[in-house]
Amino acid sequence: MTASPAINLHDYEALARERLDPAAFDYIAGGAGDERTLAANRAAWDAIGLVPRVLCDVSTVDAAVACLGRRWPHPVWMAPMAWQRLAHPHGEAASALAAAAQGAGFVLAEQAGVSIEEVGALVRDEPGRGPLALQMRLHHDRGFDLALTERARAAGFDAIVLTLDSVSNGARDRERRAGFVPPAGVTLVNLAGLAPPPADAPPHPAMTWRDLDWLLGACKLPVLVKGVLHPADAKQAAQAGVAAIVVSNHGGRTLDTSIASARALPRIADAVGGTTPLLVDGGIRRGTDVLKAVALGASAVLVGRPLYFALAAAGPQGVAQALRLLRDELEIAMVLAGCQTLSQASRDLLELPP
Amino acid sequence: MTASPAINLHDYEALARERLDPAAFDYIAGGAGDERTLAANRAAWDAIGLVPRVLCDVSTVDAAVACLGRRWPHPVWMAPMAWQRLAHPHGEAASALAAAAQGAGFVLAEQAGVSIEEVGALVRDEPGRGPLALQMRLHHDRGFDLALTERARAAGFDAIVLTLDSVSNGARDRERRAGFVPPAGVTLVNLAGLAPPPADAPPHPAMTWRDLDWLLGACKLPVLVKGVLHPADAKQAAQAGVAAIVVSNHGGRTLDTSIASARALPRIADAVGGTTPLLVDGGIRRGTDVLKAVALGASAVLVGRPLYFALAAAGPQGVAQALRLLRDELEIAMVLAGCQTLSQASRDLLELPP
Amino acid sequence: MTASPAINLHDYEALARERLDPAAFDYIAGGAGDERTLAANRAAWDAIGLVPRVLCDVSTVDAAVACLGRRWPHPVWMAPMAWQRLAHPHGEAASALAAAAQGAGFVLAEQAGVSIEEVGALVRDEPGRGPLALQMRLHHDRGFDLALTERARAAGFDAIVLTLDSVSNGARDRERRAGFVPPAGVTLVNLAGLAPPPADAPPHPAMTWRDLDWLLGACKLPVLVKGVLHPADAKQAAQAGVAAIVVSNHGGRTLDTSIASARALPRIADAVGGTTPLLVDGGIRRGTDVLKAVALGASAVLVGRPLYFALAAAGPQGVAQALRLLRDELEIAMVLAGCQTLSQASRDLLELPP
Amino acid sequence: MTASPAINLHDYEALARERLDPAAFDYIAGGAGDERTLAANRAAWDAIGLVPRVLCDVSTVDAAVACLGRRWPHPVWMAPMAWQRLAHPHGEAASALAAAAQGAGFVLAEQAGVSIEEVGALVRDEPGRGPLALQMRLHHDRGFDLALTERARAAGFDAIVLTLDSVSNGARDRERRAGFVPPAGVTLVNLAGLAPPPADAPPHPAMTWRDLDWLLGACKLPVLVKGVLHPADAKQAAQAGVAAIVVSNHGGRTLDTSIASARALPRIADAVGGTTPLLVDGGIRRGTDVLKAVALGASAVLVGRPLYFALAAAGPQGVAQALRLLRDELEIAMVLAGCQTLSQASRDLLELPP
Repeated sequence: MTASPAINLHDYEALARERLDPAAFDYIAGGAGDERTLAANRAAWDAIGLVPRVLCDVSTVDAAVACLGRRWPHPVWMAPMAWQRLAHPHGEAASALAAAAQGAGFVLAEQAGVSIEEVGALVRDEPGRGPLALQMRLHHDRGFDLALTERARAAGFDAIVLTLDSVSNGARDRERRAGFVPPAGVTLVNLAGLAPPPADAPPHPAMTWRDLDWLLGACKLPVLVKGVLHPADAKQAAQAGVAAIVVSNHGGRTLDTSIASARALPRIADAVGGTTPLLVDGGIRRGTDVLKAVALGASAVLVGRPLYFALAAAGPQGVAQALRLLRDELEIAMVLAGCQTLSQASRDLLELPP
Repeated sequence: MTASPAINLHDYEALARERLDPAAFDYIAGGAGDERTLAANRAAWDAIGLVPRVLCDVSTVDAAVACLGRRWPHPVWMAPMAWQRLAHPHGEAASALAAAAQGAGFVLAEQAGVSIEEVGALVRDEPGRGPLALQMRLHHDRGFDLALTERARAAGFDAIVLTLDSVSNGARDRERRAGFVPPAGVTLVNLAGLAPPPADAPPHPAMTWRDLDWLLGACKLPVLVKGVLHPADAKQAAQAGVAAIVVSNHGGRTLDTSIASARALPRIADAVGGTTPLLVDGGIRRGTDVLKAVALGASAVLVGRPLYFALAAAGPQGVAQALRLLRDELEIAMVLAGCQTLSQASRDLLELPP
Repeated sequence: MTASPAINLHDYEALARERLDPAAFDYIAGGAGDERTLAANRAAWDAIGLVPRVLCDVSTVDAAVACLGRRWPHPVWMAPMAWQRLAHPHGEAASALAAAAQGAGFVLAEQAGVSIEEVGALVRDEPGRGPLALQMRLHHDRGFDLALTERARAAGFDAIVLTLDSVSNGARDRERRAGFVPPAGVTLVNLAGLAPPPADAPPHPAMTWRDLDWLLGACKLPVLVKGVLHPADAKQAAQAGVAAIVVSNHGGRTLDTSIASARALPRIADAVGGTTPLLVDGGIRRGTDVLKAVALGASAVLVGRPLYFALAAAGPQGVAQALRLLRDELEIAMVLAGCQTLSQASRDLLELPP
Repeated sequence: MTASPAINLHDYEALARERLDPAAFDYIAGGAGDERTLAANRAAWDAIGLVPRVLCDVSTVDAAVACLGRRWPHPVWMAPMAWQRLAHPHGEAASALAAAAQGAGFVLAEQAGVSIEEVGALVRDEPGRGPLALQMRLHHDRGFDLALTERARAAGFDAIVLTLDSVSNGARDRERRAGFVPPAGVTLVNLAGLAPPPADAPPHPAMTWRDLDWLLGACKLPVLVKGVLHPADAKQAAQAGVAAIVVSNHGGRTLDTSIASARALPRIADAVGGTTPLLVDGGIRRGTDVLKAVALGASAVLVGRPLYFALAAAGPQGVAQALRLLRDELEIAMVLAGCQTLSQASRDLLELPP
């Protein structure tokens, strides 16, 4: 498998389509309902104009950012995505290594085909790596949940990312039409110890602010919450003491016509007022998107589908190349916008649509 | 006839096109003029963004709503549509049964091919059914009109829906181009007793606020008015004492370029101020549309063409399946938006376009 | 030649294309530059929403309007268009008769192939006809200009329409690409007595406010000015004493990217404040467009290309049918909007875009 | 090579595509990233409406403008573009001559295949020529830079245009995909004396406000700065004493999603307040675009790609014809908008989008 001839992150979709089973492709590429939010996520970044500065000293630029109490090479993370062994035999292990090699963050999905321990062992001591986090939900067994966080801590993970916005899978019409079923040979190894839910469990497992408080008290790793769109929720999460908030609509995969994350981000930044770091995902494809996200108040961005496609198209080299492309684009954008560091990026650099 | 492979309400249109006479299809699918309002109805729901809440207890959700003094399983009604025997031999009888089976409301059009009495007998005692109403106009014979309402009451109907917005048929270009004529073998059984209009009748039968007052005084069933778009009219109707107002542009079939009902609804809600229940129709295709309508102040929504198409495509099973799909989508949307009940849905959940 | 199967005014374009020389078609159909204003004229009417009223007594409606001191059956005029003998052997004579038969106004272009006297004789005594006007420019010979107005008066014309907005022909790319040249066998009979311009004439004949003052003083017929888009010009024209102002961008044929006339109309209505009647043209295709124009302050509307196309497609019967279609649509729109007369149409009936 | 059948500036693109090597075409035609700014540049001019005046004395119009202390026939300049020998054997010499013959300004790119001295000798004494300027960057050798300005002055150039906005080439995906490499047989003759950068040079040569101050102090020609989009930068440049500011996003070739220059221009005009002349480029294709730019505060406009394409399509005659077409369109637009001179064009003539 050789590095693909992709020139930008868009290119990986077509390359992956050639290699993936059609139903798997639709599972990855598709969104909920009429895929309005999926499209709006992209469009919202494009709709933000850049108003660059000139005659700044950008002979060198530095995309480093602080997050979770440390400094990382750049603000790009690979988003948590399930079933990566659909795309490559080594699945999440391949992705995590590629991310680490590029200084990018990596969020292992609880629905991974590779164990927390294996990923930790591969990545934790990689020099120059980005942050490493475990994505999880709260299940019907709080003992299991706490043990999961402990396994992550023991494996060298830096944080837990608690997903709040997928209490239901949403109405994923494209996926249903394609008839996607999880692959036969892949086990969700990290959830293997979880007993089946009790017969009287409610259809949508309840997770409330009290559950979040419990996790924040019990978990020894910093806890990020992912899937916040409403400013009031962001404010409450900040007051609850989360380590960071990921502004996200789950890549348009759950509640169609949810607002684009690029539109939610500035409102949440206004509500939270700098007390809690923000991350954002949804539609990030270009270095300019990353710069805009940072200018709107994000400390980091998560990228999903393009990296999944890169993994399918060209394996770990593909993921690494995609991350490199995006970082290169970000640094070019910084040079051209007159930002020596990302701390210089603010809304003054933007023309926001009404 | 078996249930169709539809995944969402859009799908029934293509399925119905295969089975319907082309002129009948155009009669059902088409709108007035350049079909701008027809398109705007859809676009206006899509243009409203959802700003969902997280960490609410949505382990179970309940889509029940109160309307006409009772509580119903969910807020979806089948809109009044003429000539349903074009779509299925049992016409409105098939539709009414399917709606009742799914707990949905049903509005029998006065231009039905099945009698008020037959529909009432089929549906009135169906357990878990939704509200049952008769749609009518005022004709040149007020004795006939009052008798019609009495027949409905005797047959177990819950309400009368008085259509205000189709004094003329509008300029239905698609229908005229297709050369649609009402089907030969179908009789409008409920209007059979109506004598022909007198020779000196005006071209557009006058129906004014005084006529509405007469009906409100004479009719023993609650009277809803359908086809209100102007806030001042809504205010006056509320003061006149109607049981509810259906915000509607007749599915874009009468006055083209009328504003989309999703745009009219919040203005009317502001004008009426909660004194009178509101319903809305026009372009509702998704559970998220229903949730948005409720968040904007509607107690229920009417769905038209997709259910007609479902009847044509798969008979009563098709109608039932379509209603089930929509209700499922609504409940998923409630879960994902953080609404345990529909009373929790308000404008705070929405990003309204300018 | 028989009446065409057109169902609305759009339909005549395709019908005419079959019968016209391609270069002539492009001359008629085309606009200036990139045809942005041509498209914007249509789009601007469509972008205005109607907010209809219900329960008004519209058992009969009356589209009559007052203009030029008289009352006319309805507010539609046929716009001045040159070279109508391209479309039909009887050219402007055919159009004028058809307009009169339908109670529509008719504006004879100075660049007609039929004489003022012939048109006057055909139309002046037609019962129920609409207003009859002569369109002209000011030329390099004021004696000739005055004589032209006198000929119109003698022939029974009601008014002069002075065109202000075509000092140059504009950059009509489509027309140039098609290689249109005026037809060989047609003479501009009304301009035949005009001597060629002097050798030292300026490239763009000067016409200023002083020239307008001269005409207003010298001409015994009411003078309308056509081609006003700027509110300040409208104000000055009203103060100068014109009989009416035609808000127009010359059908998008002169200065491309000029604002749509439907956008200019309300601003001009605000500036003029009801002191001087307003007319409007540009993109009027539907009865709802006419109703919107009246609601925005117009006393009448001019329709151009569709009537030219109707003349080419089906001769005078085509023009008559097109005018009838438009009037029918207007009356249907009045019924559905709740307007017994056009004086009841105001901005309260509209949802204006930002 | 004969003059091409182009009717407007758009036409040269298709004509050039037939004659250019595909990679060279993509190099010229392409923009950065997803080419959003490239498209926005055009769309932004189109989105500005004209509100023309009537009854002005436009029997003759004069497009002359003052700039750099002199009066020029009209406000159109040919923008600096590299590698013009890709399009024609005589490259920039052909373009410069054509521009001079049409009274247009000409900016020689430092990356030209023809020497400063050759261009100066061809053009400096051409009667009726427009302004002649040399575009340059600051390099790692300030002695070389100053010598370059001296060579320009000695060759009769009127000004230096310092490019500020291409510290990096940007992410030019189309160019990379096409595999463009600079042509083998062409030497950048004006940069031939520049030693290679030192081994420890930073990746993006630093150019700051201090460097600008140095050039403004050292250079004996007026210095224009090109590539300003932020009002604060424009203000600072004006205070620094630049001769003029070129509002530009480099034709969409560097930082994609930068705001359209037509949107940046009025904000910069407001910030600078008339103290320093403004020029603008990006998407100018029509005489109406030029008129709008002037009405928004520009003293001149630069046109790029269409003239490059005209050079490829029809050599110097093509460039001359394109400039003539644009000037003709400008003069027609002035006539139709009621502007005898360009000093009469102000924002009052425009309908600006929100």
